[in-house]
Parts: sequence; structure tokens; C-alpha cells
Amino acid sequence: MAPMDFNRDEFFMRQAVRLAEEGRGFTSPNPVVGACIVRSGRILSKGFHRRFGAPHAEVEVIKKAWGKTKGTTLYVSMEPCSTYGKTPPCVQTIIDAKIGRVVIGMLDPNPKHSGRGVSILRKQGVRVTTGVLEEQARIQNESFSKWITKGFPFGALKMAESLDGKIALESGQSRWISGPESRKWVHKLRTGHDAVMVGTNTLLRDNPRLTARGGHGNWLPWKIVLDPRGQCRSNMRIFLAGGPVLLACSEKYFNHVTRKFRSTGIVIIPLKAKGDYLNLKQLFKHLGGLGITSVLAEGGGELSWSLISAGLIDKIYWIIAPKLIGGKNSKTSVEGCGVASLDQSYMVKRMNLQRLGSDLLIEGYLK
Amino acid sequence: MAPMDFNRDEFFMRQAVRLAEEGRGFTSPNPVVGACIVRSGRILSKGFHRRFGAPHAEVEVIKKAWGKTKGTTLYVSMEPCSTYGKTPPCVQTIIDAKIGRVVIGMLDPNPKHSGRGVSILRKQGVRVTTGVLEEQARIQNESFSKWITKGFPFGALKMAESLDGKIALESGQSRWISGPESRKWVHKLRTGHDAVMVGTNTLLRDNPRLTARGGHGNWLPWKIVLDPRGQCRSNMRIFLAGGPVLLACSEKYFNHVTRKFRSTGIVIIPLKAKGDYLNLKQLFKHLGGLGITSVLAEGGGELSWSLISAGLIDKIYWIIAPKLIGGKNSKTSVEGCGVASLDQSYMVKRMNLQRLGSDLLIEGYLK
Repeated sequence: MAPMDFNRDEFFMRQAVRLAEEGRGFTSPNPVVGACIVRSGRILSKGFHRRFGAPHAEVEVIKKAWGKTKGTTLYVSMEPCSTYGKTPPCVQTIIDAKIGRVVIGMLDPNPKHSGRGVSILRKQGVRVTTGVLEEQARIQNESFSKWITKGFPFGALKMAESLDGKIALESGQSRWISGPESRKWVHKLRTGHDAVMVGTNTLLRDNPRLTARGGHGNWLPWKIVLDPRGQCRSNMRIFLAGGPVLLACSEKYFNHVTRKFRSTGIVIIPLKAKGDYLNLKQLFKHLGGLGITSVLAEGGGELSWSLISAGLIDKIYWIIAPKLIGGKNSKTSVEGCGVASLDQSYMVKRMNLQRLGSDLLIEGYLK
Repeated sequence: MAPMDFNRDEFFMRQAVRLAEEGRGFTSPNPVVGACIVRSGRILSKGFHRRFGAPHAEVEVIKKAWGKTKGTTLYVSMEPCSTYGKTPPCVQTIIDAKIGRVVIGMLDPNPKHSGRGVSILRKQGVRVTTGVLEEQARIQNESFSKWITKGFPFGALKMAESLDGKIALESGQSRWISGPESRKWVHKLRTGHDAVMVGTNTLLRDNPRLTARGGHGNWLPWKIVLDPRGQCRSNMRIFLAGGPVLLACSEKYFNHVTRKFRSTGIVIIPLKAKGDYLNLKQLFKHLGGLGITSVLAEGGGELSWSLISAGLIDKIYWIIAPKLIGGKNSKTSVEGCGVASLDQSYMVKRMNLQRLGSDLLIEGYLK
């Protein structure tokens, strides 16, 4: 393939990947997918998967260009589906529309379907190119990919600490470590996740809302509260701010918690526990079963350690505020018992840096 | 002045500022200064202040171009001196050499002399331009400027922590938090300071050498050990690795320490103390008197808190390794009692980011 062709493919795939983002927050547990139809270097139609249950991106763009699709090129950020789900298979729609060529970002991450759409299209004489801007397309749906392959939600951990690793004073004061730009950014970050998670310590100390202001629409992520002994109160802000709430407690306290939160609409999940340490793997498995593809945890040092050491965190968002706080007894971002030896440290890979106002944001992966 | 001229000035001043760096580590308590002589856009000679007691940069470049200096332009990163010190005043040499124009980076930071060289030159008919690349020239001699104006050494604090702010495990294990590139860089950082400082906790735990490998020459910075009760042993590596050593202890333990380190060549300074908290301002005043213009402290969380809260730290070098360690009882980078309230946090200004291998280096100022 000539380099010119390849650059053109990347150009239009970039549109598709960008379009996909428009659906973020509404498609779960489906992936975000964007598409466009191109003839002779001109876009005939653009579209994306708007929300769970709505037409797939490919169907949307084909509908918009109906009657003019013969021999065109379809760019789509993820491999078209080949099975009946909520909608008929997209490959059939593509074939019916007489699309000449399909350019794909990433293959379907579901191992049961991966590559099947491509091979059906090719058998029907449609030219197919795969792997264009594959990395961008893959990262865009890293939550979905994790969930569809492992059954567990993608685990993200957000932290806001001082340069010396403190998230609160000994007194508990934690407002505010980070600056206004960071806090605004966190609201947006929440809208990109199916659920936000908080531990009972943070809840009792800060009484946060964990709302996702600044996102598009009125969609609200699940709020997941880890409260082994059911210590939080039903009039706390998190329960009043709207959106579905799930409270995970120790099996031992299930009856107590059920009584306490009777007719509040809060979903209560009993978990195996050792003392106050809930079995978080069991919880994540359960969340996966509920169709929650991504969880954003907002520590507490105890919660962050529990999640990290249980292997449930895929990605971290670390906000570092340009200040020194000190204090032997100040709270730090990751506590628990810690690693037994430095060579067992949890390594952060593929770090990415960004400024948020005067704060620094470090993104990276634990896996 | 036409923009072209100004850019030309910046171009040659950049050379002078770079040349000055060649002397770093050898000129203290003099500043680092670089210079070049230019005629018709061509450099006739380049030079820098090589070491304390050696000719000033201006004199060096004039000597090298002797007989050809009439009507030339002299670029020098700091205002030429106007008083007799170790050498005759440079302004006289400049006038004798019939230099036509002098371009200066920063004025002499010594308030007693600042601007005097400029006015003498102008009275003698030499054209003078000041403030070219002033900021670079000023930063280059920030230690000297602090010392000459306040009498205290410039305080720098270097820390190497994990992303969650830990510098050692509860067990004391701290080797290694940061990667090999960072550790190599720290050796270079040490050569740029007149003294390195360490607390007794770190000394007893790590037994570090604190050498400045990788620098130019065999010059070694002072090693300053804070050891209130004289607990360290005279066979520790820091005492064996060469270079002058100063041990600061509590007045109460002065006799004990003097006996313990008899005929070791270690300079022992008794300080006022509250319990184990030495009066570090008194120490810094003393170090300033010894001609030590800059101190690089290498924590311990207790030492770093003591220095920060005493207002002795001007600049921080914060190495963040891409790992999470956890541990409620792990050691963190700044401990002590910490700030009483978040609005009293020590703000880090003018942050600068850089990668050191897979680590991140954050530089910033507390003042």
C-alpha cells in the first residue's frame, strides 16, 4: 500500500476515533464506536454509537448516507459486529449497503467474535484493512476490552496528593489538596466511568457527593460505597445526590445494613470479609456481572492499598499538587501494610504527564 | 535598538552563560562567570572564572585577545567588579584594553557593588548594555546571590520518593527507590553544591558515602552531618570517602563528640538545641561564615521537615520513581509535625519537569 493511502486512512480513522468519544458515558456496557463514510476523499456521513440500545455507529452512518453508499469506504473504530445482539449484525448492513471497503481501528476484543466480522466481509468481496490507529482505538475502549475478556471492570484509581505524598492532615483535613482545575477535571473523569468507588473512612471524613458535574447530559455513574460494618448514614450526601448507589458490606453485617437502609433504593451486596477487609475480587466480579465495565476508585490510603494489592487496579490518575505538607502522622495516598520488599513495588508503566492548572497529573498503568 | 542587534547580544550572552558553567564547583565562594570578546560578529576569545583565586572571566578573555581588543564588544554574564579583591578590578582592565562596549547578563548581586562597575565604565566612555539573558544569568548564580545578600547558604533539598511519597519501607529499606539515571544525576547535582547535608537517621540507616562521582575534577563538596547526640561512628563511609566533613551536634554533647572524633580532622560545631532539634538557622549562619554558599540536603523526612519549616530551603529537587509502595508505617519524604492547616502548606513555585530515565524530576522553589 502506498504511504499516501495509509495517511489518508489514518486521517479518516482519527475522525472515527474522535466521534466515538461523543458516546462516552452512555454506551456501557457497549464500547464507544465512531464511524464515517468516505467517497473520493470526502466524508459523506459521520456517526457514533449514541447510547446502549441505540444503533451501532456503522448502521447510523449508513442510514445517513443511504442510497449513496455503493463503492464507498467505511471507517469504523472497532470491527463491525457479526452477531445478533440488541441490533441486527452490522456486517449484514454493510454488505446490503454495497460498501466497497471497510477500514477498522481495532478488532472486536471479545475473543468469541474477534476477526469474524472481517472474515465475513472479505468472503462477501468487501475489501478490509485492519489495525489503522489501532493503539488509539484500543486505549479508547480499554475498559470494555478488560470487561468483555475478563468479566471484571477496568479498575482506575484517582489520587490527589501533595508533592510529599500526603492526602490529608492528621486532623483529617483534606480540602483542598489539589487546585480548582484538577477538581473540575475529576468531575469529567467520573463521567467517563460506569462507577465511582469510595471507602467508608473517606465517606465519614469528607462526606463527599462524588457527583460528575461538567459531563454531558444527566447521566450519573454508579456510586459504590465500601462499608464493611455499615457505619455510614443514609442522609450522607452521596446518597442524596442522585444516581444509583451500591453499598458493599461484610456478610456478617448484611442484616444490620439491610435494616438500616430499608426502602432507600440502595443496592446492598454482602461480601466475604476478613475483619474489616472485604473481598474486593468478589465485589469486582459482581460489578462485572451488573454490566459495570469500569470503576474509578477515589481513595483513602487503605482503599487504594486494598485495591492495588488485590490486583484490581489497571490504571492510575495521580494528581500532584505543588505543595509540601509534612507530618509523620499525615495520611498518605497508599497505606495498608505496603510491600514487604522494594523489589515487590507496584510499577507504573507508560506514564504520561500533564499539567492541570498548577497541579501535575500523572497517568499510568499498573498492568 | 534594532531587534537584530538584540538577538545578536542574546546569542553571544548565551555563550558567556554556558562558559560560566565550566567553572561550577571550583569558584565558590565566588560566582561562576563566563565571557567572550566579539568583533564584527566573530568571537576573538572565550573564557570563564576557572577557580577561586584565578583571574576573573573578563581578565582571562582580554589576556587571550591582548592587542586586538580595541573597539570590541565584551560579553560577560555578571557585571565586572569594581573593587580590589583577590585580583585588581576588572573595570580597570576593560578600560585599559580599550573595549568599546560591554554587554552584561546580571548586575553584581552584592548590594554594596551593584551597578558600580557599570557606572565607572560609562564614565570612561564605554558603552554598556545590561540585563541581556538576565534571568538565565541570575539563576546560574542563585546560590552566590543568596549568600552574598543574606549571609546564609542557598538551601537545596533533594528527595527520591515513590509516587505515593515513600522514601523507605518500615524496615528501613530504601535501596533503591529511584533508578540508575537518577542516582547518576544526583552525583552531578552534588558537585554543583559547596556542601551536602544528611541527618543522623539516614546516616545510621543507609551509611551513605555522599560522594560526588561523575563531576569534573577531584573537587569534593563539604559533608555536613547533623548528629545531635554524636551517635554516628567514625568508621562510617561518609568519613572515609574524602573531602572535608563538618559534624553539627547539640552543645550538650559537644565534649562527648569532640572526644569521640579526636584527631579525625572532622570539624565539630556545637549548636543550640531543643532536645534532638538542632538550631539549624544558627548552623546555616555558621556555614555562610565559612564561605559555603550552597547546601544540598538529602533527607530523611525529619531533616527535610526541620529545614523546610525553619525557612532554610530555597529550592527542591524531587525525584519521583514510577512505583507504588504503600504502607501506613513506611517512611515519607517530609515528616516532622507537618503543617497545622492546609492553607499553611509550603507552596512550590516555578515548577519544572524533566524525565530521568523512567523517573520524574520536579524542580521548584519554595521562595
